[in-house]
Amino acid sequence: MHIIESLQWRYATKKFDATKKLTSEQIEVLKNAFSLTATSFGLQPIKLVVIENKEIQESLVEHSFNQRQVADASHLLVICFQDEFTTEDIETYFSLVKEVRQTPDEVLNPFKDYLVDAFSKKTRDEMHTSFKNQAYIALGNLLNVCAIEKIDSCPMEGFVPEKYDELLNLKAQNLKSALILPIGFRAEDDFMKDLKKVRKPLDKTVIDIK
Amino acid sequence: MHIIESLQWRYATKKFDATKKLTSEQIEVLKNAFSLTATSFGLQPIKLVVIENKEIQESLVEHSFNQRQVADASHLLVICFQDEFTTEDIETYFSLVKEVRQTPDEVLNPFKDYLVDAFSKKTRDEMHTSFKNQAYIALGNLLNVCAIEKIDSCPMEGFVPEKYDELLNLKAQNLKSALILPIGFRAEDDFMKDLKKVRKPLDKTVIDIK
Repeated sequence: MHIIESLQWRYATKKFDATKKLTSEQIEVLKNAFSLTATSFGLQPIKLVVIENKEIQESLVEHSFNQRQVADASHLLVICFQDEFTTEDIETYFSLVKEVRQTPDEVLNPFKDYLVDAFSKKTRDEMHTSFKNQAYIALGNLLNVCAIEKIDSCPMEGFVPEKYDELLNLKAQNLKSALILPIGFRAEDDFMKDLKKVRKPLDKTVIDIK
Repeated sequence: MHIIESLQWRYATKKFDATKKLTSEQIEVLKNAFSLTATSFGLQPIKLVVIENKEIQESLVEHSFNQRQVADASHLLVICFQDEFTTEDIETYFSLVKEVRQTPDEVLNPFKDYLVDAFSKKTRDEMHTSFKNQAYIALGNLLNVCAIEKIDSCPMEGFVPEKYDELLNLKAQNLKSALILPIGFRAEDDFMKDLKKVRKPLDKTVIDIK
């Protein structure tokens, strides 16, 4: 199927079929796709939590404005970002670059020093804003990969991050939740399922400069 | 090619082959993919500027921290968001829903009223932050579609939005630039081209909760 047809097939699934389960192969594709998301300077300050536990999913519904997708979906993905981000994280990244590419220190160090300096000047809020942006890139990537793999999904900003952080023990893991994405199979009786896609005409969405 | 292989093929292209041009069919796919990006409540407060003009591209290099990708790429994409967003924009959206889906007013109006009220309580900055988030979803989508279509790309936050807004006359069109994406063909001598991808191991990027 052409990518445009896949993107047309995608819609924000409001009702999932709670009896159907994604395979571990499908989840593996999404994990790998997430890991391949482009991040600013390649630093990967984001992390994916994959929940496949009905009890936990049920407990999150009330902190998701009572949206049942969270519980009925086969799996619930939570895209998180790092709370504290330190020089050590930058050092770890450059050690990894060195290991994978055998790049000599004299090539890596100037860029490393630049990043250490740049990050030392950022406030915590500025870092969080930047890391959250990258969570949104990951969301765009995952929505797309789900569509290609015929996995239904529902991108959601409507949840209480503080409650998720608490219930999923994210703080202890230096993480904050940014976005959630229930994934699985559209229910036969999801009223959104057969509705036509609504999009502005292309000439209202795109400007050509030649 | 499997989506994971496509994502592995992708890298932030630092040097483009300035002699090669994407076809209008390739650009059409990207425009359509952009239009199909998921946006909050479906409101599409984002717009894509597609630049194919070497003179303009050259003039933007100095406002892009002298990164030559901007000029050497076949096309330069600029993802923008709406500056002012009013009740009229919400009304226009619901007129479109009604036209496409023939949804009766009594079904649409409560949701419309909810959105009008919710947006009236948002500050300009809050709206901009939210719209920018959606620009990042579009970036994630476009990076992915480029990879599938074997189009090279370089996602960039490193540019001066105010200068872009001025030179591209965006303010007059009620737009602000959020992100740029030069697209085209990797140069044979791009030193990044054959470097191995650096990613943390999957167990540092994903947390399973079962």
